[in-house]
Amino acid sequence: MEMTEWNKMLGGEYYDAFDPYILKARKLAKDHIAELQRSYDDEKTRIDATKKLLGTAHDDTYIERNVYFDYGINTHVGKRFYANANVVILDCARVDIGDNVMFGPAVQIYTASHPLDPETRNSGAEFAKPVRIGNSVWIGGGAIILPGVTLGDNVIVGAGSVVTKDVPDNAIVGGNPAKIIKYVK
Amino acid sequence: MEMTEWNKMLGGEYYDAFDPYILKARKLAKDHIAELQRSYDDEKTRIDATKKLLGTAHDDTYIERNVYFDYGINTHVGKRFYANANVVILDCARVDIGDNVMFGPAVQIYTASHPLDPETRNSGAEFAKPVRIGNSVWIGGGAIILPGVTLGDNVIVGAGSVVTKDVPDNAIVGGNPAKIIKYVK
Amino acid sequence: MEMTEWNKMLGGEYYDAFDPYILKARKLAKDHIAELQRSYDDEKTRIDATKKLLGTAHDDTYIERNVYFDYGINTHVGKRFYANANVVILDCARVDIGDNVMFGPAVQIYTASHPLDPETRNSGAEFAKPVRIGNSVWIGGGAIILPGVTLGDNVIVGAGSVVTKDVPDNAIVGGNPAKIIKYVK
Repeated sequence: MEMTEWNKMLGGEYYDAFDPYILKARKLAKDHIAELQRSYDDEKTRIDATKKLLGTAHDDTYIERNVYFDYGINTHVGKRFYANANVVILDCARVDIGDNVMFGPAVQIYTASHPLDPETRNSGAEFAKPVRIGNSVWIGGGAIILPGVTLGDNVIVGAGSVVTKDVPDNAIVGGNPAKIIKYVK
Repeated sequence: MEMTEWNKMLGGEYYDAFDPYILKARKLAKDHIAELQRSYDDEKTRIDATKKLLGTAHDDTYIERNVYFDYGINTHVGKRFYANANVVILDCARVDIGDNVMFGPAVQIYTASHPLDPETRNSGAEFAKPVRIGNSVWIGGGAIILPGVTLGDNVIVGAGSVVTKDVPDNAIVGGNPAKIIKYVK
Repeated sequence: MEMTEWNKMLGGEYYDAFDPYILKARKLAKDHIAELQRSYDDEKTRIDATKKLLGTAHDDTYIERNVYFDYGINTHVGKRFYANANVVILDCARVDIGDNVMFGPAVQIYTASHPLDPETRNSGAEFAKPVRIGNSVWIGGGAIILPGVTLGDNVIVGAGSVVTKDVPDNAIVGGNPAKIIKYVK
């Protein structure tokens, strides 16, 4: 595989966020988001716009108004995905979402990161880590999922949580940083 | 009272979120939100749009841009209500707000909830619990109020708080989950 | 300097938020935000709209979609400022931002405050305290910076943090309320 900036970005390496191909992909996503935003009056138009925006979507995918993606095409959702209003997904790396997953309003999924060292960060160096979300996961409104995090099956993330590390199957987490509160089974 | 899905929703029972009457009410709210969003250049038009969107509103109700409601008509505000930009109110159950209440930007009021058990949740079962907000309450920006919560009179909710249980009169709360910091009187 | 309501607002004194000059400035900001929102298809138009909206901006200032400002003209950014989607800046008092500063999505900068005493607050009395952000600062998505806070150079604010007090140079802070986690150098 040729090490284009796009491939570096998806592969978790430092990449140039101003690469022409990457800029074009970001712009295209914005056009697709605008198309989705105009589509809610007609069900077929809405589904078509949703499929155009995402890497993988289905007839039963529902994304509410005012969503924001970096790329969209790096986000892959399973069956019966529902996202409420104002969700933000920074999908520089892949975001893989299982079946029966629900996002509350203003949920934030971040794969994008920056170096901690200010000189390196100011040079424009960026990198991204994939986020993986299992089946039957419910992420409460306003929760934030940080780069590289994997959420297991049946996980529930309490509203307003900040999830900084992996969450095992069946766990309910809450708080900032999010901690395990109990298990659903 | 006939146990329609709408009445079940308002009554805190499991209901079918895809019931035709409910879907129509959600769509109508989105049209009213869009009307409000277009109305800010003319004061009378803005007030009319606000009254059309909410269950109870007044000439002195002010809701800033980019608000999001599930239904709008299940939200009832007192005199001199002010909500800043990007507020989200999921009013499947009633949201009752007293006089002289102020919301900072991106405040989230949720009545909507889902079962914790993944199988039950995946069946589409949903339920909602009312939120009650007293008089002279100030909710700081980005704070989240969870289903079933009652905030007493004169309560102040710190910015970014996640309020998981009732707050007594005159309390200032902060944090995630929100805890009482002190009393205003 | 004449003590107009505008000068009182910028000076941290109680002011009348319904003063005609202030209302006009708020309305003008909304028009400029709308102009920016429509500008992303053309780089020159976007830069012009950004400069019109902010008190100080540069050719390399980039503010993503769905930003919200109270005034805009009270916000002054250094070289290479980048703000991601859905950022909210309540700039009743000045917001001064250094060079090489990055905001994640949905970052909230608040200078606006209200009295804690309910009677005083209900009278409409408002006041504001300036926010100062040093050079090479990275504020993670969804973080909230409260009125009067100063962030030193090279500070990193973790996603979803609520910053209630000043942060010294080189500190990484996280949590609600935000606490120092470590230093970058």
